[in-house]
Amino acid sequence: MKTLQVSLGERSYPIQIGQGLLTQTDYRAWLSHKHVIVVTNTTVAPLYLQSFKECLEQQGMQVDTVILPDGEAYKTMDTLNVLLTRLLEIKAERKTTLFALGGGVIGDIVGFAAAIYLRGIPFIQVPTTLLSQVDSSVGGKTAVNHPLGKNMVGCFYQPKAVVIDTSTLQTLPEREFSAGLAEVIKYGLIRDRAFLEWLDKSMKAIWAQDNEALSEAIYRSCQYKADIVAEDESELGVRALLNLGHTFGHAIETGMGYGAWLHGEAVGAGTLMAAELSHQAGWLTQGDVEQVRHFMQLAHLPLKGPQLGADRYIELMQNDKKVENGDLRLILLKALGQAEVVTWKDSTLLKRVIESCCDA
Amino acid sequence: MKTLQVSLGERSYPIQIGQGLLTQTDYRAWLSHKHVIVVTNTTVAPLYLQSFKECLEQQGMQVDTVILPDGEAYKTMDTLNVLLTRLLEIKAERKTTLFALGGGVIGDIVGFAAAIYLRGIPFIQVPTTLLSQVDSSVGGKTAVNHPLGKNMVGCFYQPKAVVIDTSTLQTLPEREFSAGLAEVIKYGLIRDRAFLEWLDKSMKAIWAQDNEALSEAIYRSCQYKADIVAEDESELGVRALLNLGHTFGHAIETGMGYGAWLHGEAVGAGTLMAAELSHQAGWLTQGDVEQVRHFMQLAHLPLKGPQLGADRYIELMQNDKKVENGDLRLILLKALGQAEVVTWKDSTLLKRVIESCCDA
Repeated sequence: MKTLQVSLGERSYPIQIGQGLLTQTDYRAWLSHKHVIVVTNTTVAPLYLQSFKECLEQQGMQVDTVILPDGEAYKTMDTLNVLLTRLLEIKAERKTTLFALGGGVIGDIVGFAAAIYLRGIPFIQVPTTLLSQVDSSVGGKTAVNHPLGKNMVGCFYQPKAVVIDTSTLQTLPEREFSAGLAEVIKYGLIRDRAFLEWLDKSMKAIWAQDNEALSEAIYRSCQYKADIVAEDESELGVRALLNLGHTFGHAIETGMGYGAWLHGEAVGAGTLMAAELSHQAGWLTQGDVEQVRHFMQLAHLPLKGPQLGADRYIELMQNDKKVENGDLRLILLKALGQAEVVTWKDSTLLKRVIESCCDA
Repeated sequence: MKTLQVSLGERSYPIQIGQGLLTQTDYRAWLSHKHVIVVTNTTVAPLYLQSFKECLEQQGMQVDTVILPDGEAYKTMDTLNVLLTRLLEIKAERKTTLFALGGGVIGDIVGFAAAIYLRGIPFIQVPTTLLSQVDSSVGGKTAVNHPLGKNMVGCFYQPKAVVIDTSTLQTLPEREFSAGLAEVIKYGLIRDRAFLEWLDKSMKAIWAQDNEALSEAIYRSCQYKADIVAEDESELGVRALLNLGHTFGHAIETGMGYGAWLHGEAVGAGTLMAAELSHQAGWLTQGDVEQVRHFMQLAHLPLKGPQLGADRYIELMQNDKKVENGDLRLILLKALGQAEVVTWKDSTLLKRVIESCCDA
């Protein structure tokens, strides 16, 4: 087992990474009461809920469970309301701990419910997808989507712990595995060219779920994320760089209808748009852009965005949380391994780049 | 003008109290962007929205407005959703400031929206009822109600400033004025017997809206609240004492249907129940209870709770946020001017006290 720490003063918490942790972890030190509620979805429940519940009960806990529908389309205020009502019916108290057992959607919605139920109760992230293990379970961003924009409503609210059982990835569909890799590649692109080189060599082993390569990829990703979050919890500065490809990606997700494209797929295509724009802005070389494309290929990610029309892209991108004075603020690459927030006003060039990066 | 400070490190903020402040305050120092959105209700809008909007425009701001329906019955997730959607349509950004212009319902719902819109944007409280001026606008408790319980969903989220214009009380209905006095009396009961004595002498002048007496009552109330919040922002300890009468009161509000009883009316009747229970527990004398009743009379507040049935009261009280291990935790009075949190297990005595404090 490997352990990392997210350093946030009294809100600090550990990230534990290893095979079989789901049912081999002693959760008791993180709990202030024996009543816990495991929230999961209809896909994960048949795979892991029973064994996880038994593990918790063996540790003396009184366990309730809530099973939500699966998928980005359900990351809504309506599902949040269903969950909050269930918590009231179950009589969850201020010291009851919620467990988020599932992928990014479960983590985001359970974290948000924990943040606002009785004005805040504790929760623990137990991510079971690659995307949630390398990115969304760490750092305390919680949210639901709004028809007008992705993740528009939520809180910064940190979990008490993140427990990453890498063996849960054995049941993950390939398409979801791909999607998670988009966020792994992202860390290399925004801050560590050497990590990109390691990824290039290791991608085959990662795909084969070789334990050493896979857990190294997850560990390194969590380390980047933990460092950035410790430096800038509420995204006043450097944390925005983690949004590489996301302004484009969120437009794809919202524009196509939540769930049609997986978040990681949309981020992958969006990252290629950001790379191309960085090239047009004179920062990346054509060869750099090809490198980015190469990584998306290694990850089996889509290389083109969907054809929504550039105007629609820009309309959707205007709902981004980083917009200031009506101007887009995009994460662009100065070089491979170096990102920057750029206020972008040239919509003509932006439209041309979007068109060139979309399916014909 | 009188000024107080809520001391919470980098989240500290001022409370300003005075006649005419609504349109005489320079709001610019608290804003990070010229775009502001005033959120108010259908009752307050015709009275104060136009002049307030003009004041803000004269200070160079770009002002949008949102008018919500009035009343506790609308402090719901549905209204919150309407507000969040309007914010997206107006294209509120992270630096846009919301103004909550109205009573406790507006303050609570606008504060909650500010807490979760784009994961948090700034807001300013401009309370226009006595209850919100002496209590709910200070301290960062935000929430909406749930059909199963009052204020069950919300955040601790502090405003950038609280601007209290005492002259807005001239348009406040008498019933609302009464309701606000319940919270003023509360401060005396929980921590300052001398303040109770001052209130006894000053109540006539306060009712007459004598400026000196009224602003002193508001100032002292805000001072108690600010001190308690600075000591215990997230209610791990002393802040719970501010809940005197509230566990009973919330049961009344939920049980009667939100809005049938005003919050302050329910708190007044609930405080009498807490006083009677404190007497039965051997702490307050019968004379002390009469004193509490005397204050409720001075405030023209109901002296009996509605007849819901003691079992129903207790069922509703079980949804209180302070419940621990299924046990009620009530704020009781050790003496006039001294309160304590008590874990209460004797439901027979509790039922008898509730019955004796309800309308026949």
